Amino acid sequence: MASEKPLVAVTCTAPVNIAVIKYWGKRDEELILPINSSLSVTLHQDQLKTTTTAAISKDFTEDQIWINGRKEDIGQPRIQACLRQIRHLARKQRSGEEEEDPLPLSPSYKVHIASVNNFPTAAGLASSAAGYACLAYTLARVYGVESDLSEVARRGSGSACRSLYGGFVEWQMGEQADGKDSVARQVAPESHWPELRVLILVVSAEKKLTGSTVGMQTSVETSPLLRFRAEAVVPARMAEMIHYVKERNFEGFGQLTMKDSNQFHATCLDTFPPISYLNDTSRHIIHLVHRFNAHHGQTKVAYTFDAGPNAVIFTLDDTVAEFVAAVKHCFPPESNGDKFLKGLPVGPAPLSDELKAALGMDPTPGGIKYIIATQVGPGPQMLDQPHAHLLGPDGLPKPVA
Amino acid sequence: MASEKPLVAVTCTAPVNIAVIKYWGKRDEELILPINSSLSVTLHQDQLKTTTTAAISKDFTEDQIWINGRKEDIGQPRIQACLRQIRHLARKQRSGEEEEDPLPLSPSYKVHIASVNNFPTAAGLASSAAGYACLAYTLARVYGVESDLSEVARRGSGSACRSLYGGFVEWQMGEQADGKDSVARQVAPESHWPELRVLILVVSAEKKLTGSTVGMQTSVETSPLLRFRAEAVVPARMAEMIHYVKERNFEGFGQLTMKDSNQFHATCLDTFPPISYLNDTSRHIIHLVHRFNAHHGQTKVAYTFDAGPNAVIFTLDDTVAEFVAAVKHCFPPESNGDKFLKGLPVGPAPLSDELKAALGMDPTPGGIKYIIATQVGPGPQMLDQPHAHLLGPDGLPKPVA
Repeated sequence: MASEKPLVAVTCTAPVNIAVIKYWGKRDEELILPINSSLSVTLHQDQLKTTTTAAISKDFTEDQIWINGRKEDIGQPRIQACLRQIRHLARKQRSGEEEEDPLPLSPSYKVHIASVNNFPTAAGLASSAAGYACLAYTLARVYGVESDLSEVARRGSGSACRSLYGGFVEWQMGEQADGKDSVARQVAPESHWPELRVLILVVSAEKKLTGSTVGMQTSVETSPLLRFRAEAVVPARMAEMIHYVKERNFEGFGQLTMKDSNQFHATCLDTFPPISYLNDTSRHIIHLVHRFNAHHGQTKVAYTFDAGPNAVIFTLDDTVAEFVAAVKHCFPPESNGDKFLKGLPVGPAPLSDELKAALGMDPTPGGIKYIIATQVGPGPQMLDQPHAHLLGPDGLPKPVA
Repeated sequence: MASEKPLVAVTCTAPVNIAVIKYWGKRDEELILPINSSLSVTLHQDQLKTTTTAAISKDFTEDQIWINGRKEDIGQPRIQACLRQIRHLARKQRSGEEEEDPLPLSPSYKVHIASVNNFPTAAGLASSAAGYACLAYTLARVYGVESDLSEVARRGSGSACRSLYGGFVEWQMGEQADGKDSVARQVAPESHWPELRVLILVVSAEKKLTGSTVGMQTSVETSPLLRFRAEAVVPARMAEMIHYVKERNFEGFGQLTMKDSNQFHATCLDTFPPISYLNDTSRHIIHLVHRFNAHHGQTKVAYTFDAGPNAVIFTLDDTVAEFVAAVKHCFPPESNGDKFLKGLPVGPAPLSDELKAALGMDPTPGGIKYIIATQVGPGPQMLDQPHAHLLGPDGLPKPVA
């Protein structure tokens, strides 16, 4: 196995995205078509990213995949759906062009895939979106596919299609039964709102959570409120949110982000048996944000929660330091004082007695494990340097440095 | 003040009620008219009741009220609304009959009122429903009013009108602008379903909660889901619940009770800023109930939560002991082991290893402070014994024995 093989390898990275208008519920489980459109912010890959190498060779005898250094089952239906779809697109494209360039190689060549996240899975961040976006993007590059990748990524994980672009991204639910119009598109690029900042408050996790795939399926089947939300509430909210993003209106953006997070969790609670992703620490963070804003007389920070207790906070650069100081006041870091803040540097800030009084909360030591400070970022990237490859010339994962 | 006065005193008791189809939101704040009908179970007064004495005399110079032994402001708008309404009804009735009986005395006579609960306010139980039902019922007796008291009680606290009857009680929302058809009526008497039992799980309380008056007002103003619930979900649920009660169908009754509690809390979460009455202990109780039922393959227990973290559990007499054992297993009582169970006697029960495994929860010691075991009970009662009066012959509160 140590002999070198004539292989073509491509390595790409893809970002995590955080929805501000939430996706919850499928109208087609097989094609992964949603019951409503959604809108997300792409986070910067300096802090959070998936890196994937795909290598193809006529000498490979089977498809294989390694995730975070561990061999995984390539037969997983969602991985298979992505592979099938990308090969289908490659064949379609090949049939329409002259065969001159070295890429694309034959779509029938087997592929080796290695993928790693630069953030712990335990952080409860939606790693599947970055993972499947990266898989779709990397496979497209290695097989030379140039068409829209929404469907490839979506078949892996619905929200993954939103990680195919940087900045502010809309996933249009579409109307067609075959899902061809259920695609992601960029609403505004990452440079559009340079002051926007994102703080991920990683909450001390509970053990068992309802997975989002099963959760949203149960919600669709049992929650009367979810269907109403999808049909009667979200369409207007999508238009409103796009407007706020385009205008860089933080007041509107922040308020609607919080309302939509709350409504998503409300439909989870209306599910039977009910689903609760928020815990007491999440509720204290919600309380803190509303008190902080009330003290300032305007929406200076906004929260959103996905299918877990972690809070994602949006704010502007001039408010980060004060809000982080408020978080530290309410959730004093336990042992890891120096590792409490990760990502972008955050300066210290004094906390006025008036603000402390306005927060009016008993401190909950250790309620928040750490904070990741980040910002809006670009979409997937292809890395040029061969040393970035996660697979060696033999097509097997390189030993971890 | 020690001289005896020619006064007429009446003492009555009234029950607490627990809604299984929830009331949340008013269409008229002044008249206290709801945006949807609701249905409740009246709890037995052996465990939970309000006792009220009202005395009237031509010698009294002003209306006065004492609650739980403390002089309170009689000028409170809701107390005033009840007083005004009862005197209005007394005058109306008087004008239509001969003046021969000693009662009713003149509606213009001033009244002294004393009221006590036999349960701590700190228990977080809806004392206002029992309190205003008792006030309405006692004032009606002392002023000789014989008409329907729904409006009098409702003007004090909406859900109080449901405490005017025993058993299973419906509050019909009504359609008229003046609220004349927004009345309570008995769906089935307290004797209808003798096996039904009620357990109140008093949860270690948080400090600040959004009061229900302010909370429901904010919900009506900000929650898109609440209006949909009131208009599109509740009407069918009311009919369904009445059917289950009449049929004594615990499976249906229990499932719908849980769904409606969850939906009420979902609309609270959809309120802006969001309202959270459930805490982590409440969520663990919900989890416990679903696991308990799943283990038995049927709905043997059901939870409902009002505007606070306490759970009210419905079950049948043959399941009480096993469920209480399961509660003790998951929430081991702290110091007060002998005072953990109040109310109706509950025998010990073994907990099978299978059930323990099925619950699959880490114990949370002290999460539940105590349990009150009770059952369905009758409506308000007039007490005949003069020694039951809370006011002495001088019209002032008797010293507490």
